[in-house]
Amino acid sequence: MTQLFDLEHGEEFGMFVLIKQADVRVARNGNPFIAFRFQDPSGAMDGMYWSATDKEVATFQAGKVAFLRGTRDTYQGRPQVKIEGLRLAEEGEPNDPTMYVEHIEVKQEDLEKELEDALFLIKEPNISRVVRKILHQVGDDFYTYPAAKRNHHALAGGLVLHTLTMVRIAKGLLEIYPHLNASLLIGGILLHDVGKTTELSGPISTEYTLKGKMMGHIVIVTEMIDRACQEIGIDPETEAIILLKHVVLAHHGKQEYGSPILPQILEAEVIHFIDDLDAKINMISDALETTEVGSFSAQIYPLDRREYYKPTFK
Amino acid sequence: MTQLFDLEHGEEFGMFVLIKQADVRVARNGNPFIAFRFQDPSGAMDGMYWSATDKEVATFQAGKVAFLRGTRDTYQGRPQVKIEGLRLAEEGEPNDPTMYVEHIEVKQEDLEKELEDALFLIKEPNISRVVRKILHQVGDDFYTYPAAKRNHHALAGGLVLHTLTMVRIAKGLLEIYPHLNASLLIGGILLHDVGKTTELSGPISTEYTLKGKMMGHIVIVTEMIDRACQEIGIDPETEAIILLKHVVLAHHGKQEYGSPILPQILEAEVIHFIDDLDAKINMISDALETTEVGSFSAQIYPLDRREYYKPTFK
Amino acid sequence: MTQLFDLEHGEEFGMFVLIKQADVRVARNGNPFIAFRFQDPSGAMDGMYWSATDKEVATFQAGKVAFLRGTRDTYQGRPQVKIEGLRLAEEGEPNDPTMYVEHIEVKQEDLEKELEDALFLIKEPNISRVVRKILHQVGDDFYTYPAAKRNHHALAGGLVLHTLTMVRIAKGLLEIYPHLNASLLIGGILLHDVGKTTELSGPISTEYTLKGKMMGHIVIVTEMIDRACQEIGIDPETEAIILLKHVVLAHHGKQEYGSPILPQILEAEVIHFIDDLDAKINMISDALETTEVGSFSAQIYPLDRREYYKPTFK
Amino acid sequence: MTQLFDLEHGEEFGMFVLIKQADVRVARNGNPFIAFRFQDPSGAMDGMYWSATDKEVATFQAGKVAFLRGTRDTYQGRPQVKIEGLRLAEEGEPNDPTMYVEHIEVKQEDLEKELEDALFLIKEPNISRVVRKILHQVGDDFYTYPAAKRNHHALAGGLVLHTLTMVRIAKGLLEIYPHLNASLLIGGILLHDVGKTTELSGPISTEYTLKGKMMGHIVIVTEMIDRACQEIGIDPETEAIILLKHVVLAHHGKQEYGSPILPQILEAEVIHFIDDLDAKINMISDALETTEVGSFSAQIYPLDRREYYKPTFK
Amino acid sequence: MTQLFDLEHGEEFGMFVLIKQADVRVARNGNPFIAFRFQDPSGAMDGMYWSATDKEVATFQAGKVAFLRGTRDTYQGRPQVKIEGLRLAEEGEPNDPTMYVEHIEVKQEDLEKELEDALFLIKEPNISRVVRKILHQVGDDFYTYPAAKRNHHALAGGLVLHTLTMVRIAKGLLEIYPHLNASLLIGGILLHDVGKTTELSGPISTEYTLKGKMMGHIVIVTEMIDRACQEIGIDPETEAIILLKHVVLAHHGKQEYGSPILPQILEAEVIHFIDDLDAKINMISDALETTEVGSFSAQIYPLDRREYYKPTFK
Amino acid sequence: MTQLFDLEHGEEFGMFVLIKQADVRVARNGNPFIAFRFQDPSGAMDGMYWSATDKEVATFQAGKVAFLRGTRDTYQGRPQVKIEGLRLAEEGEPNDPTMYVEHIEVKQEDLEKELEDALFLIKEPNISRVVRKILHQVGDDFYTYPAAKRNHHALAGGLVLHTLTMVRIAKGLLEIYPHLNASLLIGGILLHDVGKTTELSGPISTEYTLKGKMMGHIVIVTEMIDRACQEIGIDPETEAIILLKHVVLAHHGKQEYGSPILPQILEAEVIHFIDDLDAKINMISDALETTEVGSFSAQIYPLDRREYYKPTFK
Repeated sequence: MTQLFDLEHGEEFGMFVLIKQADVRVARNGNPFIAFRFQDPSGAMDGMYWSATDKEVATFQAGKVAFLRGTRDTYQGRPQVKIEGLRLAEEGEPNDPTMYVEHIEVKQEDLEKELEDALFLIKEPNISRVVRKILHQVGDDFYTYPAAKRNHHALAGGLVLHTLTMVRIAKGLLEIYPHLNASLLIGGILLHDVGKTTELSGPISTEYTLKGKMMGHIVIVTEMIDRACQEIGIDPETEAIILLKHVVLAHHGKQEYGSPILPQILEAEVIHFIDDLDAKINMISDALETTEVGSFSAQIYPLDRREYYKPTFK
Repeated sequence: MTQLFDLEHGEEFGMFVLIKQADVRVARNGNPFIAFRFQDPSGAMDGMYWSATDKEVATFQAGKVAFLRGTRDTYQGRPQVKIEGLRLAEEGEPNDPTMYVEHIEVKQEDLEKELEDALFLIKEPNISRVVRKILHQVGDDFYTYPAAKRNHHALAGGLVLHTLTMVRIAKGLLEIYPHLNASLLIGGILLHDVGKTTELSGPISTEYTLKGKMMGHIVIVTEMIDRACQEIGIDPETEAIILLKHVVLAHHGKQEYGSPILPQILEAEVIHFIDDLDAKINMISDALETTEVGSFSAQIYPLDRREYYKPTFK
Repeated sequence: MTQLFDLEHGEEFGMFVLIKQADVRVARNGNPFIAFRFQDPSGAMDGMYWSATDKEVATFQAGKVAFLRGTRDTYQGRPQVKIEGLRLAEEGEPNDPTMYVEHIEVKQEDLEKELEDALFLIKEPNISRVVRKILHQVGDDFYTYPAAKRNHHALAGGLVLHTLTMVRIAKGLLEIYPHLNASLLIGGILLHDVGKTTELSGPISTEYTLKGKMMGHIVIVTEMIDRACQEIGIDPETEAIILLKHVVLAHHGKQEYGSPILPQILEAEVIHFIDDLDAKINMISDALETTEVGSFSAQIYPLDRREYYKPTFK
Repeated sequence: MTQLFDLEHGEEFGMFVLIKQADVRVARNGNPFIAFRFQDPSGAMDGMYWSATDKEVATFQAGKVAFLRGTRDTYQGRPQVKIEGLRLAEEGEPNDPTMYVEHIEVKQEDLEKELEDALFLIKEPNISRVVRKILHQVGDDFYTYPAAKRNHHALAGGLVLHTLTMVRIAKGLLEIYPHLNASLLIGGILLHDVGKTTELSGPISTEYTLKGKMMGHIVIVTEMIDRACQEIGIDPETEAIILLKHVVLAHHGKQEYGSPILPQILEAEVIHFIDDLDAKINMISDALETTEVGSFSAQIYPLDRREYYKPTFK
Repeated sequence: MTQLFDLEHGEEFGMFVLIKQADVRVARNGNPFIAFRFQDPSGAMDGMYWSATDKEVATFQAGKVAFLRGTRDTYQGRPQVKIEGLRLAEEGEPNDPTMYVEHIEVKQEDLEKELEDALFLIKEPNISRVVRKILHQVGDDFYTYPAAKRNHHALAGGLVLHTLTMVRIAKGLLEIYPHLNASLLIGGILLHDVGKTTELSGPISTEYTLKGKMMGHIVIVTEMIDRACQEIGIDPETEAIILLKHVVLAHHGKQEYGSPILPQILEAEVIHFIDDLDAKINMISDALETTEVGSFSAQIYPLDRREYYKPTFK
Repeated sequence: MTQLFDLEHGEEFGMFVLIKQADVRVARNGNPFIAFRFQDPSGAMDGMYWSATDKEVATFQAGKVAFLRGTRDTYQGRPQVKIEGLRLAEEGEPNDPTMYVEHIEVKQEDLEKELEDALFLIKEPNISRVVRKILHQVGDDFYTYPAAKRNHHALAGGLVLHTLTMVRIAKGLLEIYPHLNASLLIGGILLHDVGKTTELSGPISTEYTLKGKMMGHIVIVTEMIDRACQEIGIDPETEAIILLKHVVLAHHGKQEYGSPILPQILEAEVIHFIDDLDAKINMISDALETTEVGSFSAQIYPLDRREYYKPTFK
């Protein structure tokens, strides 16, 4: 079966694809349009959907499978789809999103296993109990929420992927810098973005909730920690709990990025770094995914609109 | 009895005074010194205490009455004390601090009355109950804590004075802009700095607590609101409570000043303004207090080290 | 008679309205369009007028009454007019702008009375004479000019409203902080923006004059003060006049906002604060005017593009 | 007769020198000290005077001749004087400052001639009359004032030297860019800093005047232009006068440097450049004056504390 | 023969013109358009070419002669061409670009002569040999390359014009400040932008090369100096060569403008100034070229989008 | 034998220690002092040496063993040495620095082995040859130089430790993000700071060289790469070499930190991150080394003067 990256320039086609991204923007002529990224096992390709109606915006969400008709075009050295028709896949059609993801290596049970291993690295008993309590309360949302409304890990499942990738980096650092406090480092990573499950509306058509806009996910997490302490019966004024709140509050690293205080323990600094590193690698890799070798990617807005080059050699 | 501002330049003296400020700084030669501001009913005057020992630093705290021997000097156009001897007032000596304050117009019962009046402006029932609950829990600390470790309202009692001055301004604005939401405006003002009772160690020898340094008074207040809701039995996810937390979180006005989020309701913007206005008027007025008319004050560090002029006319 | 806020979503209508705002912008396709805000006694509603001709731009000015045909639409949760026809009201039609203003509570004679009261607060005789002289020279322009070309108080009459609102706030502060110098505070407020009558072309189709662009209203006011001194026969080198110029020069508070010098007397700082506070309350209130309760306003550009929430409770 | 740069390291001496700079600073131990730069025809050399009394600060002013006893020392690769004694030169001693200046090539009559030539480049009659009027009013102050309290051209006569050096650069640019408007360029340069004669107290013991601090020299110049117009009988609202005021107001180039408006004509931009260029060359050359070839100068504070290298080759 | 500035508003015409600028931009509707500036001996005039095809973008390059049909229009007070047809001039038609340049005063042999004169100002032998070697290697590219992809001197030949204008300014400064080191000043100017011949693809359809994007012209020049030393047999570790590299590395003046180090010799500071001055004069003059006297230019993006006024008097 | 951390508060002692840091600062009284950090196997402790002579500054270098007499003091909660006498260890005394290092786990042969392993990760042949060539040329300097003059890894051997720690982190990331280009990542890390062997004078009494100050280590490395290519006979214009230079040029991540260009390939971004992470962990860990658990460290200047807390639990 023909796939996206089998197409020649100018070739017309009709095929099922996964809608990986669907950003709604408003053109200066007043009409909204949708910037799509479609995906199948061969890779991901962008396409613009001009003059979208409100109903189309509501229908064509990231995470859905759709039947796409169009022509394979090129825009600034990058393959692109010129969209000619789009409808959602229906019952009886191949509408399972997991069929279209590039490398289906991640199963939820593997993630749960990895999470369980990470929890064992937390030696401080109160931190351990609070983290387990909160993750239990969040439940499946931890596996289905995106890590952000846009930019990095904005896909369903982005939260768990981002969190566990950070854990993997942290494990490496714990070997290189053995004086790092594993309880604060791993505990802080596991909780740092868990407030997104309250800040955002959900994995599909992600919006900010009122509480999310008014308080932000950083403060929401400290509130979750405080409530968990009361439910478990832990004194929230102990050093370990105060420091756990601290690494969460400080994890954006700078006040202008929304941390009310700056890192004042080593582990807070390290969590901020790992978080930033994984977010940036994710954004750049995402942009390079649709870039041909020997070319520059599209501009990446949060990275000063820089374009990144994809080398021709390994 | 001779008072500070009765002294001529070069005149030697010995008298009881109140220690209004006692800032410890470290000179480049490695020795700490104390920058004092002494006060009696005639006004306030500065004096430097070089090479202070640890014990002297611990003894000569703001709020204490002391017997001061010295010479009335002048420094950059401002009267100053050249300290020759200093000891705390003892039993049997005139050691009641209130005797030395310039205008003893404020009694705690008047402040309590003013606070009670303010509480009646809060119409929204949940905000009203939460604010009353927290102020009840804080108790006398609300009347004895400073509003900051240094800069503005750093004296004992600074917190209540700063808070109630803001309420007075807010009342005026509610008449000028009747569409302002009184519940959020007054409730937010009454709580905005109440976390300082946890952030700071107390009215004397004020230091930051571990929780204060690691979380900051802004987040501490939202935690107090959340706990109060649970103790009273109010759902903390209602709009009024979320917005009350919001005006507290946003009251520093900018993220680089420690607010994790920016004002997103009108009342949050207004509280930030009133807070900033009273703090700056307090700092400048404090500096002008020891400035002669027709001269410039000492540099005020938090205001770009500016010097303020004291006009000769009314 | 049906009014703007009586209309249902999707309802077609034709009615007389006041053009409250008419901002001309250029779309990327090269064509100008007009962003209108229409008003009648029921409230204000926006509407875009695409591909406006030069003649239409010249005709449909803020302050005119027009007959508007269209459909009541919704855009991002806010009611909006889809414009189908627009023409100015003619002779014999209801073309008196005052009929369409929401709350006609302000009469010029009331404003004149309020101004006269304010003038009596100025005790310093030279400041008093200079302020009276300049306001006399400016004459009716003080009552008809806007306070700005856009953003806050950009309506005809905005200058006097903004100035007198600031006076009201100042009166409250004079009671709370009795050491404030009333002559400088009130005199400075009354003059601070009076240079706008030279900087801007007039209340209708407001543009910058050459002198306005090249010198700015701040320096223009100091020039007006200097000339008034010479006409009255006051020595412009006296302290009171220098300080009056200072509070005007410093009222933008920061050099990057166009003040050549920073506030160096307490009253300069306070005027800057009141000015900023009234401008921001005005901008936010203006945006909330077309926002439904429980929703967010449109982005406010000068406030970091923030959206403000309108609470559902009082 | 032995001169400063004839001395060997460690050599003791006594000689008459000119006090070129005398900056008073306060050490952290509370004592003021004077950072001197001494000069004789062989060059300039620095020396610190620790624990200066108020009387010494008042006595040892820049521009005075003094008898200096000390030892030739070295500090961070730069020759320095270790001061052992200092007294002012008395009657009958060689106390004419001009004897100690390195290259007495500049006579006032030459400067007057150069100024007269510059005035002839101003073709626009109103600008010409205003510039001549103001320079006539300023009179000798133009030749005796410094260009600043510190940093660049802070010596007596600095104002005229800085102004005429800028004229020389401007003449070169008028040949290279013949479309530059000579009237605005030369007129603007001649007036740009003339407000310093009001802003500063005088060539000796230079301080800011009250008017200087409260209004700044930039606005003072525009006031001088406005008054000159009235005295001559020129309409101050003509384009040429408005633009003349503009180039003065804009000559600091950025609002954060004190210009209330930014350059909006080409000549304003050019004046800002020339002003900045001459100031920086002056500061660096001044620092290199006491630096040996192949070494780095002392840190220059207004230039990010950079140190500048003095090459060994020509 | 009718020329551009002979046309009346609204007049239709067909004539040969030079394409002076051809900036491709993308409209929000997704279509590229070309912002043209056309030129003939009477002056330069802008015109927008909407919805350009890829082929048209590739065809209508700056530097080509074209036959233009259109109407003389006006946009925001500036004459403009409404394009109705455009095709390149063919064989046999008047297609020599030099016929359309306003003032053909510059011949390459004059430039070569001027360059030769400049080289004689370099007294230091190693700098002299390196500069001559590199200019020899660059060859004709020095006379044909633009100085930038956009903004200032973006025309073919811009590099040599910008460089030699800077030399002219430098010569004037060498007379005013005779202690400037001519070898470093002139040598540094001649080389400072020569890396653009590697950074950019060429005078037509100028793009960045891979090396240009990845290293930048500043570092490329230091590499050229290093290689030239090796080819000539000069020790690259001598002070003169290190300082020559330094003035090139530092010539952007600030790190945020791409200089890895800040100026640390006087000549580096001066080169930065001259470079910036000529670039800004060029940008503003370019904008004023199409502005009528008594009006404001279009916004200049790199200068904070400021508009510059063109005075009515000389 | 008594060691540093065996001492009681107030105890006098005499013992051999390693001088770990010796920062020379100038007190405001004009006298230099030395901020020492002494080390023995029990840990590291600070001490100030007031009024140091030039000779003492030259003698007491980091890396020397000295006999220290003094009293164990406390300063702001941290143990400190009050120095009473200091002399270098002589022949016959225990003057081998390695005896005093806390954990002598690193042998040069282990580092060489680790480096060799890292080199095998570079698959691209030209990068591999260039990296090997340069490391061969640098020779032992790679093992003896510090990584900086101050702040992080400022000890002898700091360069190799910093570089190889970065390699360890990179290896972990290569497993987590397998699409990273190992040749650029490892090659870039190994070379990124190797220019410090030219920028700095050596491991003892580290100063900047003229070339170091004038060009900076970043540009020096690209020059080393370019020269190595010529010596080996590799074309320096190939993509792999250009990108290798790029990752070095961009590794400071921001232009204001001295990178002439910003990262434009993924590996450049990652190298910048790892570099920054290891530097910050090193600075904080260094400060925590002399901090007691449950206390805050001294202020760390390059980290906004923040103080870091050392938790009491593991």
